[in-house]
Order: sequence, then C-alpha cells, then structure tokens
Amino acid sequence: MESADLLIDARWVIPVNPAGLALEHHSVAVRDGRILTVLPRTQAHAAYAASEYVSLPAHALIPGLVNLHTHASMALLRGYADDLPLAQWLQDRIWPAEARHVSPEFVYDGTLLACAEMLRGGITCFNEMYLYPAEAGRAALDMGMRAALGMIVVDAPTAYATDAEDYVAKGLSLRDALREQPLLSFCMAPHAPYSVSDRTFSRLITLAEELDLPVHMHVHESPGEIERSLTAHGLRPLERLRRLGLVGPNLIAVHAVHLTHEEIELLANSGCSVAHCPSSNLKLANGFAPVTGMLAHGINIGLGTDGSASNNRLDLFQEMRQASLLAKATSGDASALPAHIALSMATLDGARALHLDHAIGSIEPGKFADLAAVEFTAPEMLPCYDPISHIVYSAGRENVSHVWVAGQALVENHSLKRVPKNDLEKLAGLWQNTLSMETRA
Amino acid sequence: MESADLLIDARWVIPVNPAGLALEHHSVAVRDGRILTVLPRTQAHAAYAASEYVSLPAHALIPGLVNLHTHASMALLRGYADDLPLAQWLQDRIWPAEARHVSPEFVYDGTLLACAEMLRGGITCFNEMYLYPAEAGRAALDMGMRAALGMIVVDAPTAYATDAEDYVAKGLSLRDALREQPLLSFCMAPHAPYSVSDRTFSRLITLAEELDLPVHMHVHESPGEIERSLTAHGLRPLERLRRLGLVGPNLIAVHAVHLTHEEIELLANSGCSVAHCPSSNLKLANGFAPVTGMLAHGINIGLGTDGSASNNRLDLFQEMRQASLLAKATSGDASALPAHIALSMATLDGARALHLDHAIGSIEPGKFADLAAVEFTAPEMLPCYDPISHIVYSAGRENVSHVWVAGQALVENHSLKRVPKNDLEKLAGLWQNTLSMETRA
Repeated sequence: MESADLLIDARWVIPVNPAGLALEHHSVAVRDGRILTVLPRTQAHAAYAASEYVSLPAHALIPGLVNLHTHASMALLRGYADDLPLAQWLQDRIWPAEARHVSPEFVYDGTLLACAEMLRGGITCFNEMYLYPAEAGRAALDMGMRAALGMIVVDAPTAYATDAEDYVAKGLSLRDALREQPLLSFCMAPHAPYSVSDRTFSRLITLAEELDLPVHMHVHESPGEIERSLTAHGLRPLERLRRLGLVGPNLIAVHAVHLTHEEIELLANSGCSVAHCPSSNLKLANGFAPVTGMLAHGINIGLGTDGSASNNRLDLFQEMRQASLLAKATSGDASALPAHIALSMATLDGARALHLDHAIGSIEPGKFADLAAVEFTAPEMLPCYDPISHIVYSAGRENVSHVWVAGQALVENHSLKRVPKNDLEKLAGLWQNTLSMETRA
Repeated sequence: MESADLLIDARWVIPVNPAGLALEHHSVAVRDGRILTVLPRTQAHAAYAASEYVSLPAHALIPGLVNLHTHASMALLRGYADDLPLAQWLQDRIWPAEARHVSPEFVYDGTLLACAEMLRGGITCFNEMYLYPAEAGRAALDMGMRAALGMIVVDAPTAYATDAEDYVAKGLSLRDALREQPLLSFCMAPHAPYSVSDRTFSRLITLAEELDLPVHMHVHESPGEIERSLTAHGLRPLERLRRLGLVGPNLIAVHAVHLTHEEIELLANSGCSVAHCPSSNLKLANGFAPVTGMLAHGINIGLGTDGSASNNRLDLFQEMRQASLLAKATSGDASALPAHIALSMATLDGARALHLDHAIGSIEPGKFADLAAVEFTAPEMLPCYDPISHIVYSAGRENVSHVWVAGQALVENHSLKRVPKNDLEKLAGLWQNTLSMETRA
C-alpha cells in the first residue's frame, strides 16, 4: 500500500477535465498538497493507506473555484452605495471613500473578510487588483488561500504610489518579496486603457514579456470609455492596446462587454483570455457581454465576481448560474452555455488565463489539491438527476461543505477553520463605524 | 400590560409599507396569529407580556415572501432536463415524464419538498398552478404554509380531468372542500391562451367574477405562442383575452415577457397584475420582461420562481436580485429597480395580485404574522450599511434563520420544525429512482 496524507471519498468526483464527466463513488488521494490519483473507491482504499480519511457520501467534489477578477478588500464597502447611477456611484461615493480610507490596514482587513467569504463559497484562488497588493497577499497567506496578485499601475497618484514609475517599482518589489510563496503568483495589472498612458503601457509590455506575466486589465466595460478613447486617441481602446502590442496570450481582458465582431475575432486570434463578470455588468448597468459569440470563437473565458461594491457577493456559484442563464436569454437558445461549460469557466479556464492550468483548475494527478465539496442533502438540492447541472442551476455557495487549498483543509462542515467568525464581525464592525461616520459628516 | 403570544425583537424591522423604511431596534408583538403592533424595543417590552420571546439581535425581520407563480410539485423534476432547447425540453422530457408520473401522490410529495425549500428560504405563501391542486393544498397545510391554489383548466385531457367542464367542476369542488381553511385561498387558473379555448374562457370569466377570484395565467411568455395565436385567431393573445373580457384587475399575467408598448398600456389601464419570473425567462431563453416600462406605467408586479424544472431554485432572494440586476442592465440605468422596490415586489405587490394585501405582505398591525428573519452575521453579510439593499444584493435564502406563518414558527435557527430532513431525502430518493429508471428505459 502506498501512503497518502488524505483520502477523500465522494459520491461524485467531477474532474472538469475531461469536460462533463462525473465519476461516481470515486476517491481522491492527496500527498504533499498534490493529487496523487483519482480512483474508484474500492481500488483507492486497496491501494492507499492515508493519515486522514474524509467521507463525502452525498457530495460532489469539484476543483476549487478560480475568481478571475476581484478587488478583495472592497468587501469593506459591500453595499456602501447601491442603486446609484454609475457616475454618481463612483465620483460621489466610492472614490471619496477610497481616497480617505484605503490604507495597508484597510486592504489587509478587507482581504481577510473577502477570503473568508470566498473560501466558504468554494473559491480557492483569486485574481486581485487593488492598491497595496502586498497586504492582500499577506491576508491570503494568513487565510491559506491561493492568489494572483496584481502589480497595479495607474497614471494617477494615490496614497499607495506617486506615479507610474512608483507603481511599477512597488509592483516589482512586491514580486521580489513574495515570489517564493507557493500560494502566490503575479500579474501586471494596469488598471484600464483610460487610466494608463501609452508611455506607461510601453514600459509594462516589456516587463510582462520579460517576467512572463499575465496582464490583468479592465477592457471595454462601458460604452462611455470607448467614446472617450475615440475622442482622446482617435481609436477604440482595444485597437489602441493592439497597436501598443498588449493584445496577446498574456492579456486577461476584464468585462469585455462592448465588442464589435472584429474585436471578438481580434481577441480570439490573439489568444487573449476574458474575465466575464456578469453580476457586476448588470448591477452597474454596463450590459451583456457577448459570451456565446466569444465561446464560438474559442476565446478562453473565466469568471470573476468583481469587487463587493459592484456585486455585493463574492460568489462564483452565482456567477456560473448567471453566466449560463444570460447566455441562454441573449442568444435565444436554452441549450447555450450548458452547465459543464459554466463549471469549466469557473475553474480550469480561469486557471488557464492566470497561466496556472498546469497546477490547478481540475482534479488530475500532479495538480495541487485545491478542492471544494458541494453537499447535496438539503431539501433544495433534492432530487439530483445530474450532479453537474445541479451545481450550476440548483446549488448555491451555501451548499459548499469542505474546501482544501494545496491539501490543507480550510473549510470543514461549512465552517472556516482559521479565523473565528467573531473576529471578522469585530473587524467589519470597526470599519463600518469609520466609514458610516464619514457618510454622515 | 397587554398579553401577547409572541414578542420578537429585531435589529431591524422592515415593514415594506411604507416603502424603504428600516426601523432600528424595534419589536413585533403577535397574538392569535396576527400582528398586534410594531414598537421600539423598550416601549414594546413595557407594554406587552408575552408567552414567548424571540431575540434577533443581528437580523432584519421582513414580511414573509410571496411566490406569485409556481408549479410546486415539479420540485421532483428539479434538474431532470437542463440545457435543452425549449421544444425538446417540453416534448421529449417534461411532458412524457408528467404524463407517466403525475398523480395525487406525486403532487403531494413534490409539494411537501417544495414547501420545505420555500419555507427555508423565507417564502410563506405561494401561488400554485398544477394538476391535483387539492393535494398541493393538503401538503401546504401539513407544512403550515399559506397557498393560493389554482383551479387549473386546460382544454386537453390529463389523468386529473377529462375536459374543460371536468377541470372546472374539480376546481369548484376543491374550493368548496377547502374554503374554510384560513391558510388557503383560490385562483382560477386557465393554463394559457394557447391551451384554453374561447368557449372555456367565457365560462371562466363568469365564474371568476361571481366568485371574485384572481385569474392566474401564463401570458406572452415566448414569441412562438404569439405567432401561433396570430395564425389561429388573427390576434395576439392579449388582444384575444381583452376581447373575451379577461383583461382586468383579476388578471395575474405570468411572465409577460413579450409586450408591445400598447400592451403595457392595456395591462396598466386595466389594473392587471404581472408575475415576473426572471430566472425562468432566462433559463428557457424566453428573454427579458420589460419591467422598468411596466413599473413606469404603474403596473403591480410580483415575483415568481416558476417550477423547479425551469428554474431549479424556488428562491425569491434570487428572483429579487435577478429582477433588480436585469432592470438595471436592460434600461442602462444603475438606479433602476432599487432594492426596496424588489422587496416590495416579493412581498406586498405579490399579495396585492392575490387580493391578499389586506391580510399579508407587510408588517402592519392587524395583518397575519407571516414573517421571515434574515441573519446578518456570516462573513459574506459583513459589513452592513443599508439593511434593505443588503437583503436584495448581498443576502441569499441561506441567511434566512426564522420563519413564521400566521404566528406559527416553521423555521428556527435555519431548521425546519415540521418535517425531518431524512424524510424528505427518502421521499425525493424514491421519486428520483422512479423517474431515472424511466429515463434509462
């Protein structure tokens, strides 16, 4: 018998690769944080002696979900300014609150809260874009969570950095300081075409290529930014990015709501990835991304929650369901974006965009044991004819019972193992008081 | 001191009428199943001595949610046939399964399961349309839940009834048998314009007027049914219904997705109500109901989940969120359909459509104590700046901790009081086996 650290038996193991497969009564063996094998239950128990056994008799075991776009610490601004027109929301509420309050402490505390939420909902990895990314990384590590940290760059001063050169320098030193952390990876994160100059972009391209980093950027989120680009540059943002050399396999185009047919072809032919954030696009009234068209062109699409101020739920179950339902309604075809594609978008396709698909995103031998168990026993989960459709259309994040990152159990029986709920309530309460006083003043 | 059966203290009481109000640290006193008063906590405790006290220190107390359109027992077909084109879904999967399996036992068991799901998610009343409505009513009563039973009529034979006259007779005897049940009310429920003849409609109008019953009917759900009506009758369905005299304050037009501007005006001027079912409309690829336009015309709109085969979640938190997000995206205005309107749609406006707004739908003295508590302590609910926006954009049904119907506690600390989970698992398992064997045969 071979030894294993952990042997998990599940009613269904859904590896995601190959797509659409649900293995019944299988087991996953884990050693040193990685998946050793996926075998029928009896074979697995004959072959492995494990230090720990976990039985999931009415559960589906899926790869941990990959949140391809968020601003984690904005969890502290959840519901801070809802139901406002976009410009008022940003200019009167979000930006002033950020200018006054965003600090290393804000980012650490907010990311802690966001990680707690994401882990409880089966998310094991998030792609982060915000100020003070080192603090976000510290919080992710303290929670045991995997993160891709955005080395953020904006051509505007903030408390975090004075100018583009300073942002770049801080991003590089962040990467130097944390690159040995096995749970962390890095992206260049120029905020958006409208907030970054040609000169800065040119500097970033060189860096992204030298360091072989994904480029995480908001792209074509709203019609307004396209009009302003036409005025300022005489070009739509994507065409400007193309001329600057940024449209390639490293690009993670976030939102990508407003695209011409030619732009869809450009993204496809260039091997770009898209981070689709359906709830955020609806809530900020930005519209419907042309997802079925992009999928038909073979574009790799992952799912993102965006930050809590523009979605309120860091919940990829919601985004899987939303992506699939919207694709059906906008295409007029109830068979569009079936459940197994939505699950792949939320796992393997997100990992691929982050250049992490060799390590995470599916349940395959050699990959890290980033796993989530979805429990199928509550009345609202009965009966079950197809576990994959059940995960997307019936389940919610509340049905996630167990979560592992690199083989470490972080959620057991629906409860976080590392941070007590009381601590998070206290932390959120303190920030809420600070921010609310601000509002009333 | 006056006596009360129950005194509930809540961090927030959200009465819904007046709209947008959140009363802090208030209490609700209940006697004989009805709300006596809503008072600040200290005043309430000075004025009332109660047999039972419930403290909800980090919760919002809201009116129980009203599900304005469902086919409850289709819970047994949850996920039975997902990701199929509409015609194939109906003709190859749903209709054959129904023809073989729908029986009084199917409807009783399925409704039991649906009630368990709905109650756990804060739904206290549902508007039912399916075969064997007496069995649905029996299940609702056994669960302690409020229901409006549809006296269903279709011009086609089923196991339940042979022809229109038989449906009508069965509907009338259902009402005669159950009209003294305080938790039950009744609607005429002609299935849809395409499945009911002019002759039958004429009979139903007279009955609905004589008995003063709402008329619960699918209307303009898909473009295809409008085209077929033009072919068969030379009229769009709503115009046909108008000529037949069915378009008036009794009508609950379910779906109402495909409407001309004139049809919106017709519904508004006639005092009709609409049952908006956003998730179902997306999943079956029927499109986007013109909700902001209907609201601008003053149409009363409630929310429905539809049945579990076309939504998979009997979850009005999902529908509130979905209604609000879709209204923003389709109108291009992030301030469209704000949270307090979504909450009103899911409560008081649904009650109004059922002619039950004198009795339920808001937290007001004299109304029945149909109440739900939403707990705000989980990490994903922190912090909270506005409890109403929190309920719609951040909360899920999993945050519902307590539910009362007519003062009877049916959910406490997230658990059902009446039916053990094991019983429901067994019941769902039996039906799943029966239906799955069918599929493989």
